[in-house]
Amino acid sequence: MTGATELAIVPEVLAEYGALVRDALAVQLQPRTPGPWLYDLVRDYPTRGGRMLRPSLCLATACAFGARVDEAMPAAVALELIHNAFLVHDDVEDGSLERRGRPTLPVLHGIPLSVNAGDALAVMALRVLLESRTVLGQQLSSDVVEETEKMMRESIEGQAMELGWRHDNAVDLDDEDYFQMVLRKTCSYTTIYPSRVGALIGSRGRAPLDGFVRYGFFLGAAFQIQDDLLNLVGDHESYGKELSGDLWEGKRTLIIISLLRRASQTDRLRIARILAKSRDDRTEADVEWLLSGVKAHGCVEYARGVAHAMAGAALHEADAVYAEIPPSREKRFLEALPRWVLARS
Amino acid sequence: MTGATELAIVPEVLAEYGALVRDALAVQLQPRTPGPWLYDLVRDYPTRGGRMLRPSLCLATACAFGARVDEAMPAAVALELIHNAFLVHDDVEDGSLERRGRPTLPVLHGIPLSVNAGDALAVMALRVLLESRTVLGQQLSSDVVEETEKMMRESIEGQAMELGWRHDNAVDLDDEDYFQMVLRKTCSYTTIYPSRVGALIGSRGRAPLDGFVRYGFFLGAAFQIQDDLLNLVGDHESYGKELSGDLWEGKRTLIIISLLRRASQTDRLRIARILAKSRDDRTEADVEWLLSGVKAHGCVEYARGVAHAMAGAALHEADAVYAEIPPSREKRFLEALPRWVLARS
Repeated sequence: MTGATELAIVPEVLAEYGALVRDALAVQLQPRTPGPWLYDLVRDYPTRGGRMLRPSLCLATACAFGARVDEAMPAAVALELIHNAFLVHDDVEDGSLERRGRPTLPVLHGIPLSVNAGDALAVMALRVLLESRTVLGQQLSSDVVEETEKMMRESIEGQAMELGWRHDNAVDLDDEDYFQMVLRKTCSYTTIYPSRVGALIGSRGRAPLDGFVRYGFFLGAAFQIQDDLLNLVGDHESYGKELSGDLWEGKRTLIIISLLRRASQTDRLRIARILAKSRDDRTEADVEWLLSGVKAHGCVEYARGVAHAMAGAALHEADAVYAEIPPSREKRFLEALPRWVLARS
Repeated sequence: MTGATELAIVPEVLAEYGALVRDALAVQLQPRTPGPWLYDLVRDYPTRGGRMLRPSLCLATACAFGARVDEAMPAAVALELIHNAFLVHDDVEDGSLERRGRPTLPVLHGIPLSVNAGDALAVMALRVLLESRTVLGQQLSSDVVEETEKMMRESIEGQAMELGWRHDNAVDLDDEDYFQMVLRKTCSYTTIYPSRVGALIGSRGRAPLDGFVRYGFFLGAAFQIQDDLLNLVGDHESYGKELSGDLWEGKRTLIIISLLRRASQTDRLRIARILAKSRDDRTEADVEWLLSGVKAHGCVEYARGVAHAMAGAALHEADAVYAEIPPSREKRFLEALPRWVLARS
């Protein structure tokens, strides 16, 4: 169950499906007018070489449920475009400096053009979905658009929670708040929606989709916590964002929430004061001190433990949602995902 | 043809249809969680009491072409939601201070929550359109979504042009550039799309839609130039935005473009230097000096003349696009619109 050999299928399938998605995406991202103020920005993030986890999950699920790759490709491409739309707006909203190893769009081009480019990416996704009528038929294509709308709405609500906590400098948060936020902001479009839409297309609307909410929640939560951990203790080169960026941005990660709970009353007030600062006012010393608190209180180990529990629950749910489908390479990929999420660096 | 009596139908129909749209919109804008960080912001602009020009144009066209109000209402509501989504992102991108007589969302809540609220408004519009399946049927509803995607794409491209000009401090622009920008940024979603979608729904897909591009372009251009004029020489209370806000923001209006063309070489360089400044660096004296140049070079009169020519062309096109439909109150409203656009203050 835990062999490295078994996990090797994940990067393999990601590389394979990722290449297919990149090709299909390139068609959408051809140079167009106005270039320097819009479509050059639109093309930037999608061509920085992400892992293509979301579209690959969508494609693999669709194929495991019986679809051809070309039937699920529009949904996969749309998903990657929406993912990039979110990344652009997130980078504006978070004031982030780096994305996939390079300066963010707002750093390169300013906030106005970046907000507009994010809008364009979302609308391009809609067009790809509308055009999928020709391959999926009107009803199925329309069902996919409906799932997409729901997914986008939930992601925006999750983003509002996270931004709102920073806006109000919320420090009275517990794990439950974190999971409510992550369910909407991360799981919805990273795991739940790609799986649901894949199964929807693969089964031509016949597979029950409810189980994917639980499966996707556990898998997505494990993924997000692992991402938060990598942000703190990862290796800058392979991570591609500035290290400790979450601390600089004052994000309410599970790690910070557990630190707030474990710290002494005095330290808690100091954490709150640091979190209340604007990004520009936070100092190297602030971030260092937060990091030392995180280490002293075992918050990394705590978060790692929760991520493991989540991945275990995802494995359990995977048994249920994939029970009815025949063995396939894609099925093995899907079943290996929860353990791979924890193993990735 | 020019009587004030004839124009009186425009505010009448706007008030009537506007009230219907406001009621339908209120259903979409009911309080929801998370409120303070998302849905309270989402509700703000739509409830500040706009004129409801766009949805009313859509409804009146649909009814003139034979639809019932409830058949076109989802498209009208979606349009108003998208209009507000654009307003929110525009205010972020332009750094605007006032909207409909009150501080803008970014002034009230900051850029991050505002960008996210704009995203939510656009997604809400999509949901309303998807739900219109029940009243329009799958095919027609899907055609409306397709028109919407095109409209949003063009608006974003027009916005990119306008933002790009400011970003690069473009001063070598001519009227043709301005019209290319206004066709996409203003006309697309203010006049072309509302008319096209209204006719599409009213005729159940049978009316030819190409003529609405010309009609909508002329009407929308007249509308935008008049808007730019009101921004300069209007009355602050009835206008609802800060006066001369366009000059403060360095917008490339037809007025500024004609000033750049008419000014001496020395003045042209000074204008370019003023336009190159960031909004915060522009001074009262800069704006006063620009305003005096606009007046000295007859740029207001020039722009007013162009607006009149555009409205005349719109009247001419109206004859063609409305030729086949029977007389009705809505038809009279549509035919009065081009003259009303110039008369409004």
